[in-house]
Amino acid sequence: MKTSQRILLTALTLFNRHGENGVTSVDIAMELDISPGNLYYHFKGKESMVSALMRMHEKQMQRVLVPNALDSLTAEEVMYYLYLLVDSLHVFQFFYRSPADIVEKYPLIEKPRKNILSSLRKQLSQLLTTLSHKKVLVASPSDLTLLVDLLSLIITQSCQFDETNSHMDETSQRYHALSLMMVSLLPRLVLSEAQQNSILEALHSHALANVTEHVPQDMFNTKE
Amino acid sequence: MKTSQRILLTALTLFNRHGENGVTSVDIAMELDISPGNLYYHFKGKESMVSALMRMHEKQMQRVLVPNALDSLTAEEVMYYLYLLVDSLHVFQFFYRSPADIVEKYPLIEKPRKNILSSLRKQLSQLLTTLSHKKVLVASPSDLTLLVDLLSLIITQSCQFDETNSHMDETSQRYHALSLMMVSLLPRLVLSEAQQNSILEALHSHALANVTEHVPQDMFNTKE
Repeated sequence: MKTSQRILLTALTLFNRHGENGVTSVDIAMELDISPGNLYYHFKGKESMVSALMRMHEKQMQRVLVPNALDSLTAEEVMYYLYLLVDSLHVFQFFYRSPADIVEKYPLIEKPRKNILSSLRKQLSQLLTTLSHKKVLVASPSDLTLLVDLLSLIITQSCQFDETNSHMDETSQRYHALSLMMVSLLPRLVLSEAQQNSILEALHSHALANVTEHVPQDMFNTKE
Repeated sequence: MKTSQRILLTALTLFNRHGENGVTSVDIAMELDISPGNLYYHFKGKESMVSALMRMHEKQMQRVLVPNALDSLTAEEVMYYLYLLVDSLHVFQFFYRSPADIVEKYPLIEKPRKNILSSLRKQLSQLLTTLSHKKVLVASPSDLTLLVDLLSLIITQSCQFDETNSHMDETSQRYHALSLMMVSLLPRLVLSEAQQNSILEALHSHALANVTEHVPQDMFNTKE
């Protein structure tokens, strides 16, 4: 792995663990056991690292938010897909820790952040509209809009909320986010008892673990 | 109004508008047209103002989170009550802007913040359990827990999320929070068509405005 990639990966790990505010460039250099001068050679300060990470986050989300294949999803696959969304965002969780503050501090990341959120909303909207057209989801047009808002709120904020207010580990946080989405959707889904049970079973047993394999190993091979 | 009360009121207004990070003691003194020395005579720095505001917030929420009278609420009154909760928290919205950061910065406020959240959860839990016992709400015990989590997330984070991501005014943000709660609860509520219509009508027309009168004028008469 190239030094610039190692730097970004370490910055991401430390930002996620301590919040962006709690980590200095020197901390990152020390964690990597390189000199601050060497780090500075690759990235001129935290702003350029934060921007590079946001570009990676945007690319990663574009890969997950592809409109094709949504049409054929079953209710269970929809749940898998929602988990995938939570999980993907969680890789860059520090951006969602204090969203207002971080954008004020680094105005450069505002546009990609907005792009991600609007792609997410568009995708959720298409997902729920498709289910509604197939009569699998019972919801009025205004319900659909609200459900998109609600799922966006849960996907972006729930893990952070649990991080501050409970002692869940990261996997539990993600399943909790998924459970919050499903508790809102389930009474509106037209499912057989078998389908309903299999969804509840998967939620309770945290049995979606295989989806976490979606994070491609080449994600850190971005040219800097 | 005493000077110390005027200081707190001004600090609260500025913190809510710009975030706590974006406001200095000098900004507060300037806004009040008093000298920084005079402000310092009343409050030794921002920490003591933030702590005083958190104590006020805790007192205010204790007044709203009283367990009596929940038993007799109708579904419509439950909606009013949820709005009241959103509205009350919103008065001290800056505490919910970057919850993790502000608690790290001012460790003194962690305990009262936890108290507020745990009282809120207890209250929501009692509210939903009562509705479930009266067969007005259809939800399993684990659904009830998740709904309490979901409503807590919406009440504390939704307005902040809209503040960062949309151009809603504050009243719209609060109604939006209420609509997000109701879109999760409505399919589980056993209501007559007339009740359901009256709830949707109230939500769409933003016709709960009178509840905002709950913020007592004497809230700033705390002894400092």
